[in-house]
Amino acid sequence: MKAKHIQYLITAALACALGFTSTITRAADPLPSWNDGRAKQSIVEFVAKVTKESSPDFVPVAERIATFDNDGTLWCEQPLYFQLAFALDRIKTLAPHHPEWKDKEPFASALKGDVKSALAGGEHALLELVMATHAGMTTQEFEQIVKDWIAKAKHPKTGRSYTEIVYQPMLELLAYLRANGFKNFIVSGGGVEFMRPWTEGVYGIPPEQVIGSSIKTKFEIRDGKPVLVRLPEINFIDDGAGKPVGINQHIGRRPIAAFGNSDGDLQMLQWTTAGSGARLALIVHHTDAEREWAYDRTSHVGRLDKALDEANAKGWTVVDMKKDWKRIFPWEK
Amino acid sequence: MKAKHIQYLITAALACALGFTSTITRAADPLPSWNDGRAKQSIVEFVAKVTKESSPDFVPVAERIATFDNDGTLWCEQPLYFQLAFALDRIKTLAPHHPEWKDKEPFASALKGDVKSALAGGEHALLELVMATHAGMTTQEFEQIVKDWIAKAKHPKTGRSYTEIVYQPMLELLAYLRANGFKNFIVSGGGVEFMRPWTEGVYGIPPEQVIGSSIKTKFEIRDGKPVLVRLPEINFIDDGAGKPVGINQHIGRRPIAAFGNSDGDLQMLQWTTAGSGARLALIVHHTDAEREWAYDRTSHVGRLDKALDEANAKGWTVVDMKKDWKRIFPWEK
Repeated sequence: MKAKHIQYLITAALACALGFTSTITRAADPLPSWNDGRAKQSIVEFVAKVTKESSPDFVPVAERIATFDNDGTLWCEQPLYFQLAFALDRIKTLAPHHPEWKDKEPFASALKGDVKSALAGGEHALLELVMATHAGMTTQEFEQIVKDWIAKAKHPKTGRSYTEIVYQPMLELLAYLRANGFKNFIVSGGGVEFMRPWTEGVYGIPPEQVIGSSIKTKFEIRDGKPVLVRLPEINFIDDGAGKPVGINQHIGRRPIAAFGNSDGDLQMLQWTTAGSGARLALIVHHTDAEREWAYDRTSHVGRLDKALDEANAKGWTVVDMKKDWKRIFPWEK
Repeated sequence: MKAKHIQYLITAALACALGFTSTITRAADPLPSWNDGRAKQSIVEFVAKVTKESSPDFVPVAERIATFDNDGTLWCEQPLYFQLAFALDRIKTLAPHHPEWKDKEPFASALKGDVKSALAGGEHALLELVMATHAGMTTQEFEQIVKDWIAKAKHPKTGRSYTEIVYQPMLELLAYLRANGFKNFIVSGGGVEFMRPWTEGVYGIPPEQVIGSSIKTKFEIRDGKPVLVRLPEINFIDDGAGKPVGINQHIGRRPIAAFGNSDGDLQMLQWTTAGSGARLALIVHHTDAEREWAYDRTSHVGRLDKALDEANAKGWTVVDMKKDWKRIFPWEK
């Protein structure tokens, strides 16, 4: 072999090796919107541990179940729960058919845009708003109502679509877990039929992997066609101690990783970490008043108090949004 | 290249081609235990229609949802529901802790092995037997009880394990659909936590794809460990009109194919076929008194009456077990 050929081969080999290295380097950062730090490290280390066949903590693909809260964990929950914004918009849309609402709370305040007064009646008022807007139609009709709303409605602070007010680092985390054989589930206090019409497009989570609160439905034949009618009656509240119940009912397997942001996720994190082998429990702590919101122990929405204490006591991963996230929303530079 | 080398290559190529052809031929009958006929044909044609990208009835993989009843559709339900056999066995096991059962129905009859008298009290008696044997322990404890029972218990007529009394043609159908991108779900009136411990091993259906009847559970911390306690209270009956409700709650998508064997599956078949595009609705008709059992319109277990009429009226596929199935159980020659 001539010297110049050898030279060429060395050059080619080097180029190849460099190219390869750079591919590896790029592949090695599956979470580009996460700053280096303990939170990111705990995720990457956990995934390595459970996916490496030689690891003592190896978990077969079928058992790689991860559960995510939605409000405040995957998308924003400020200045008010997005599903509540939906309910309030629906009240306005439906008002012409309900002249009596003008003089009846919580509807009267809701129609005036006075959310605080509308919710002054507590749980009962909330239930009235929910049932007036979420029940009485078929599941198919409701799905269309949600699709129409989510396509048009705008988030009050940013003016963006609600489906854009999702956390870029969490989208990366969902994709990273999926690429590593995980099945991601949503386990949310939000209404399951409010989420399903858009979770696949936004999070890559199909309807059958969405668990949420629900109202009862009833099978009927209408004009020769079978329908499911949504009834004004609570079926299941998927929050707090309800989350492990919902997980067991729906998945029938204990997750090995769980992600939340509030006390409503505490029992899901307890349930997840109580299994044997490697476990990941992660809490998103809203600490960035500038880029998002800062709230925790005294907040009405997404209160994080007991779960924060337990996270500290048990060494769960706590994400400091301000410090740990390079970017909050997908559309930020 | 020498002549003998060329000769060798030609031989090798031919062997390879023949091997390949024979693989294709074998792959062309994915349902070897099904006799050729309308039932088999309707399945194969449906799968071809929805999986061929150029077909007007093409369905994306994510939407290929198939739902299967369990009792009488995937495994046998004679001479009595296998879950009832489990409950009766448990009554005997637990009897030493319940001396009062000796004089109290339905337990007294159950302990004497007189099933008919034990069930004479109808739904109330059944509920008492179920709650005494299915509630009061944690979900983890119950899972172990089911695993222990299913590993040892024997089917009265065949002397085989219950998990062997499954229909070979249906196992082939499950595998065939799975190989074509379908996600198979069980949608059964049976208890969800009675099925999940063994459905993955027997049918290849993971726990999160099993929908069934359930009792309520409650999250508790016991000795510092979170548990779910099974309560003696019905949560959901996944039968009849409950099946579309359960499907919607759990899957959130309408199946494109559904498989049942009794009137309890009628609404699931109606719900499935009411969607647009190609649909497959199939009923297993128990017509083989020699190899299995023959029963339909007047049977107490797995009555098939209204659903048979509707199948005939709407052109659903009806499997005649005697005629359509070469083999019923996996262990038959």
